[in-house]
Amino acid sequence: MIALDHHPTGRHFLQIPGPSPVPDRILRAMSLPTIDHRGPEFAALGLKVLAGLRQVFQTRHPVVVYPASGTGAWEAALANTLSPGDAVLMYETGHFASLWKKMAERLGLQPEFLAKAGTDADTGLPLAWRHGVQADMLAERLRRDREHAIKAVCVVHNETSTGVTSDIAAVRRAIDDAGHPALLLVDTISGLASADYRHDEWGVDVTISGSQKGLMLPPGISFNAVSPKALAASRQARLPKSFWAWDEIIEMNRGGYWPYTPNTNLLYGLSESLDMLLGQGLPAVFARHRRWGEGVRAAVRAWGLPIQCADAAVYSPVLTGVVTPAGVDADALRRLIHERFDLSLGTGLGRIKGRMFRIGHLGDCNDLTLMAALSGVEMGLKLSGIALAGSGVQAAMDFFSAHPQPVPLADAA
Amino acid sequence: MIALDHHPTGRHFLQIPGPSPVPDRILRAMSLPTIDHRGPEFAALGLKVLAGLRQVFQTRHPVVVYPASGTGAWEAALANTLSPGDAVLMYETGHFASLWKKMAERLGLQPEFLAKAGTDADTGLPLAWRHGVQADMLAERLRRDREHAIKAVCVVHNETSTGVTSDIAAVRRAIDDAGHPALLLVDTISGLASADYRHDEWGVDVTISGSQKGLMLPPGISFNAVSPKALAASRQARLPKSFWAWDEIIEMNRGGYWPYTPNTNLLYGLSESLDMLLGQGLPAVFARHRRWGEGVRAAVRAWGLPIQCADAAVYSPVLTGVVTPAGVDADALRRLIHERFDLSLGTGLGRIKGRMFRIGHLGDCNDLTLMAALSGVEMGLKLSGIALAGSGVQAAMDFFSAHPQPVPLADAA
Amino acid sequence: MIALDHHPTGRHFLQIPGPSPVPDRILRAMSLPTIDHRGPEFAALGLKVLAGLRQVFQTRHPVVVYPASGTGAWEAALANTLSPGDAVLMYETGHFASLWKKMAERLGLQPEFLAKAGTDADTGLPLAWRHGVQADMLAERLRRDREHAIKAVCVVHNETSTGVTSDIAAVRRAIDDAGHPALLLVDTISGLASADYRHDEWGVDVTISGSQKGLMLPPGISFNAVSPKALAASRQARLPKSFWAWDEIIEMNRGGYWPYTPNTNLLYGLSESLDMLLGQGLPAVFARHRRWGEGVRAAVRAWGLPIQCADAAVYSPVLTGVVTPAGVDADALRRLIHERFDLSLGTGLGRIKGRMFRIGHLGDCNDLTLMAALSGVEMGLKLSGIALAGSGVQAAMDFFSAHPQPVPLADAA
Amino acid sequence: MIALDHHPTGRHFLQIPGPSPVPDRILRAMSLPTIDHRGPEFAALGLKVLAGLRQVFQTRHPVVVYPASGTGAWEAALANTLSPGDAVLMYETGHFASLWKKMAERLGLQPEFLAKAGTDADTGLPLAWRHGVQADMLAERLRRDREHAIKAVCVVHNETSTGVTSDIAAVRRAIDDAGHPALLLVDTISGLASADYRHDEWGVDVTISGSQKGLMLPPGISFNAVSPKALAASRQARLPKSFWAWDEIIEMNRGGYWPYTPNTNLLYGLSESLDMLLGQGLPAVFARHRRWGEGVRAAVRAWGLPIQCADAAVYSPVLTGVVTPAGVDADALRRLIHERFDLSLGTGLGRIKGRMFRIGHLGDCNDLTLMAALSGVEMGLKLSGIALAGSGVQAAMDFFSAHPQPVPLADAA
Repeated sequence: MIALDHHPTGRHFLQIPGPSPVPDRILRAMSLPTIDHRGPEFAALGLKVLAGLRQVFQTRHPVVVYPASGTGAWEAALANTLSPGDAVLMYETGHFASLWKKMAERLGLQPEFLAKAGTDADTGLPLAWRHGVQADMLAERLRRDREHAIKAVCVVHNETSTGVTSDIAAVRRAIDDAGHPALLLVDTISGLASADYRHDEWGVDVTISGSQKGLMLPPGISFNAVSPKALAASRQARLPKSFWAWDEIIEMNRGGYWPYTPNTNLLYGLSESLDMLLGQGLPAVFARHRRWGEGVRAAVRAWGLPIQCADAAVYSPVLTGVVTPAGVDADALRRLIHERFDLSLGTGLGRIKGRMFRIGHLGDCNDLTLMAALSGVEMGLKLSGIALAGSGVQAAMDFFSAHPQPVPLADAA
Repeated sequence: MIALDHHPTGRHFLQIPGPSPVPDRILRAMSLPTIDHRGPEFAALGLKVLAGLRQVFQTRHPVVVYPASGTGAWEAALANTLSPGDAVLMYETGHFASLWKKMAERLGLQPEFLAKAGTDADTGLPLAWRHGVQADMLAERLRRDREHAIKAVCVVHNETSTGVTSDIAAVRRAIDDAGHPALLLVDTISGLASADYRHDEWGVDVTISGSQKGLMLPPGISFNAVSPKALAASRQARLPKSFWAWDEIIEMNRGGYWPYTPNTNLLYGLSESLDMLLGQGLPAVFARHRRWGEGVRAAVRAWGLPIQCADAAVYSPVLTGVVTPAGVDADALRRLIHERFDLSLGTGLGRIKGRMFRIGHLGDCNDLTLMAALSGVEMGLKLSGIALAGSGVQAAMDFFSAHPQPVPLADAA
Repeated sequence: MIALDHHPTGRHFLQIPGPSPVPDRILRAMSLPTIDHRGPEFAALGLKVLAGLRQVFQTRHPVVVYPASGTGAWEAALANTLSPGDAVLMYETGHFASLWKKMAERLGLQPEFLAKAGTDADTGLPLAWRHGVQADMLAERLRRDREHAIKAVCVVHNETSTGVTSDIAAVRRAIDDAGHPALLLVDTISGLASADYRHDEWGVDVTISGSQKGLMLPPGISFNAVSPKALAASRQARLPKSFWAWDEIIEMNRGGYWPYTPNTNLLYGLSESLDMLLGQGLPAVFARHRRWGEGVRAAVRAWGLPIQCADAAVYSPVLTGVVTPAGVDADALRRLIHERFDLSLGTGLGRIKGRMFRIGHLGDCNDLTLMAALSGVEMGLKLSGIALAGSGVQAAMDFFSAHPQPVPLADAA
Repeated sequence: MIALDHHPTGRHFLQIPGPSPVPDRILRAMSLPTIDHRGPEFAALGLKVLAGLRQVFQTRHPVVVYPASGTGAWEAALANTLSPGDAVLMYETGHFASLWKKMAERLGLQPEFLAKAGTDADTGLPLAWRHGVQADMLAERLRRDREHAIKAVCVVHNETSTGVTSDIAAVRRAIDDAGHPALLLVDTISGLASADYRHDEWGVDVTISGSQKGLMLPPGISFNAVSPKALAASRQARLPKSFWAWDEIIEMNRGGYWPYTPNTNLLYGLSESLDMLLGQGLPAVFARHRRWGEGVRAAVRAWGLPIQCADAAVYSPVLTGVVTPAGVDADALRRLIHERFDLSLGTGLGRIKGRMFRIGHLGDCNDLTLMAALSGVEMGLKLSGIALAGSGVQAAMDFFSAHPQPVPLADAA
């Protein structure tokens, strides 16, 4: 069997912001024998996971599951709702927003890319990558679009490259206040099931997500939650679509099946994941991610390093970006930490490559796992010769000691 | 944990022509913890499976792996090589060829669908669905295409809906003999790693395959093997493509990585599968599938039922289609067999729905598993009131007894 | 990872009368991480499995679980209740009864070994090995023991070497009718959870069993169900005992713990096994084993071969012994079948070595698995040149077709 | 499936001194289907693990494997070599030495229990429990035994209850210097495959060990390594023995088999464990355990708490005992840490119950896992109101940073 860890002993600490660590019971469920995707057992599984997913997306409408990773679900959202040459308004929050925009271009759309202008005085990093979506910029642009050439607004809810979230309800209000009919497409690939997300209440038309983050599964399946308005739009949209087409999938899903072969074993894992998340209750899941984020940020502040997210109102509960001092190669630091301490951290991507690293605190995590990760980071920072203001490890211990994990609701009685 | 078998005891017999039974060691490999898809362990895994896949496809050229099921790889082959409105010549061998043609239409191509005309006197079934690709029909059509409007010829190597294979080398000769520049796109989703298949030697431009058949994996990843000519074509092709685009994937694959999140845990399984298949040697793998096919056909003949494939030269080594007597609902028979004997058989699809069923004999199989399946079928046929000419179970025992499984090459010394 | 099957492809058919095939969900449960055997999670597990075991043994009294295989539980039963030099009355039903007697000798007891005298005219095999315990012989012997020198009667409920069961209630009556105070010790290692067994109702003092048969677990844990009378006896018994001593175990079990390290991961499997068996209901479990036994015996009769068990009243529902014709080496036959058909059958043991083989039909089994096994046997018999009266495979198909598996109670509504 | 962790999320930290965390690949190996313990695949497995075990015990002589947990192997060592009423010289190093002595009594032997006298001024704990075996005391006692009434000397190599090792070579010299023929029986249940241990070189007659410590397996199998002198003694010894008897096992082991059903699935895990340990080389394994021990002791010293082991020459590389301040209930502390931080620590046992806790640092461990554990302990100590001299977490980070894990030999080129 292939060696998946070059280290001779002990467990790897996977603290990237996804793929997140997969719980043992999910790994076991995924290893059950593959069944006939057209048989009765499969239908029971299919109906169960589709119902559970609607709860997780907080929607009464269909959630389409693709046997494809998250990037595919981006393409699905665009291909189902838009036509060649359509104008789409996108917003640059970081690397993944930029990749989505690049995808829109490759698909023959006309994306316009808004961004908070300028660079940060302290760090020299682009301001846009340290803040969330500025809803007023969207509103202003939409108001100027008198002829409604813009067909969709596309934003990222939890920007995995920076650790900054965006206020999706505010984006919805911006569109509504502008009286604009554009569809609202939101990527919450890394936010779903970690950060609160409300497809229906927030008026999102297509929500895109994936398996390998808050759902605690390996990568390989992804999702489109689809509003009735988006579904109506898909009947007119003229981008070619076949694999991604919603219509046949939604139709077959009524019986618990898919028009083509689904990723059966990942659906076993999804069933297990839904049992875990819904059994605990989403509010408890969201609360523990917020708490982990606070603990990690306490450490970063103690080190005296800037947090990538410059706006405390939109700190991600999923990950924390840490800016390294000028002159330090953040990727060399990550490499040292990986070799010495068997800890994977997220790399800086795109415009901030080499300037920062990311600590994931999502999914199947707990306080001591984070303490392990923070001590690995602190040792690595010191071994790299970086002067620290203080001990982040100490600060995190103080935080976690002072703030007990709330008792799960199920046990509270 | 979810119940995946409604039967109270014993192992399910999964004898559909894919997903095929997954070997125990592959299931265990797949359940190892997910790693960072941007770390050094992943690169080692990536390079290993890419090299192994080239051996399985019998090619020196790139094999692109998608974190998506096989239908996606169909779309990838078309989207990378063709432009809106392009004429493509397809050939109707059965349900999957028909679905691929429907996909071409949805993507805005102009497929022309050749087929052997007429219906079979005995069974009333379409002749096209009982024979393989008629290369002379393709040659004739291509010769008439003086202006080379046809950009690609698309055929299915192992038609999973019928159990009929096609002679791909003959298709290549037909194109060459016509002096036609069309690309040759071949679906061997269910044939790869069970039936002999030679991407380079046969001059195929894009070969499409998937994980859940001869590779003995769960569904969820799929493949495009790409000739230099196809790669060149992809630079001019104008169908929108982003998720499926070969260029970035091939570029990133040089280092063992992917541009977006790969299906890590299925790649663990693929690594194990390649160790098994290449360790035994592909000739041994092909030989055992041919032998299983012969054993199963001996049973079908003994029952006195028609084999769906009417041409002995192109019997599939992967599955055998069995035509049920007029008036018998083949799906009711399958249901009875599933309920009584915990055996899944393949359904009749499309134009032959209800008229036949399919017995898979691929992947992680052996003689007694087939004996179990055949006895389940024989009991089911009798319980359904179908008069049989004789005992297929007896005939299969005679065949398997008389024809020992060849000793694996590795042990032959 | 070690190769556990010398065959290149397909699943092994494990049709020995234990270890029996382990269900997939049990294997997965067993692979969960080991926990602290002194922590609170363990106590919950311990209490659960102890309660479930009492249901399976049909007793209200303690069931002691040893982290040791079944032979250890034999020793435990003797060591806890007897003193050096004690006379024990044992009964020769086959190889395992003989081994238990040998153990009693090694431990310094004085076993007396009753047996039905003579050999069978047809087969030349010892009559004792083709019949169950003759309760009247025990009664007669006990009546002669006026001074109650005999301290225990030891019998095997399901003799795994022959496929013969014994009537334990009749043995109890024989002891009672003789007015004898001897303890009744019963081995149902291979009978428990397959054949009906009633520790309390039948008045058994110590019941010995193991994990790897009807409980569908790997070998490694074993059991003593202990009556109050046996417990009282253990306080006076003077054979040295420490590891096997009941007192400390029963005391610690009150809290769900063990005095020394238990076999944690097998207890995970036991928890899963109990969920399955008790969820279905023991009567359903017993019924399906009886039905399998009838199907297999139908095949053996059709072949014209003698069934090892000569008394239809005590056919084992767990296994069927098949006597081979004089001159045939049953082990050479078994070897041929293993090599050619990847099927393991039970060997003839002790006094019947080479004269018979055993087909297990217990645990995680179903009709088609038995059809596979029977076809492997039939092919092997023919390849060995043995003339058969007819097709056992055909007879078994007729039986299974004519006698549907009863619907599980849970689904009957 | 049973819930094995009362905590809602994240991985449990199992830092007791065994059962130690089981590596993922071992858990997967153990979940492979059970095979026939009398078939050819089993023999290959049996021969492999028996050969590997001899390397781990550093012996050319037989290693007997029991399908029973470690306590059973204690009994086996005594039962095979001794006769009722035999005098044995034992040495009190802690709880497990005391339990072994109690077992000797229960088995009818006459143990004499030497111990370093007195209590420690600082902690009030028994001196015997803070030091290793005093070989001179043994020598003195043996010299007085002119008639050689003492048949065996029994010592514990790595006392799991205290974290103190003993110098076994010195014990051997003491026996030899006294010219005494007593057998030397050594328990290294928790030392084997973590601390250097040399059965042959040190002249040990019976070495006892188990699976759930340095071998990184779940509990359930245990070992006796047997010298020729011990084997000779076993032929005369008159304690009753059957299950534990070496003779039949050693005889059957020649072919790779066992006389009764072995614990097949744990042997799969053992095969995997041996591949890992011997592949890395035992010196590398021992070195990393020593390094972990030093790191953990650096933390304990920084806290200002006494290390249970008062003699630096015999610190255990497997675990570190930490003495809690007078008035602190160490078990209440452990409970708090378990509840708040999902970390299991070893309890104080026997005479030191409530006065100390134990941190395991063995088996499948690494620096960050220990950092996690130490931060959990540090937070717990503070939350319990214990005044600490300084930060153990900081001290451990300093140690681990300053002392890189040596590169594995295999990669050193």
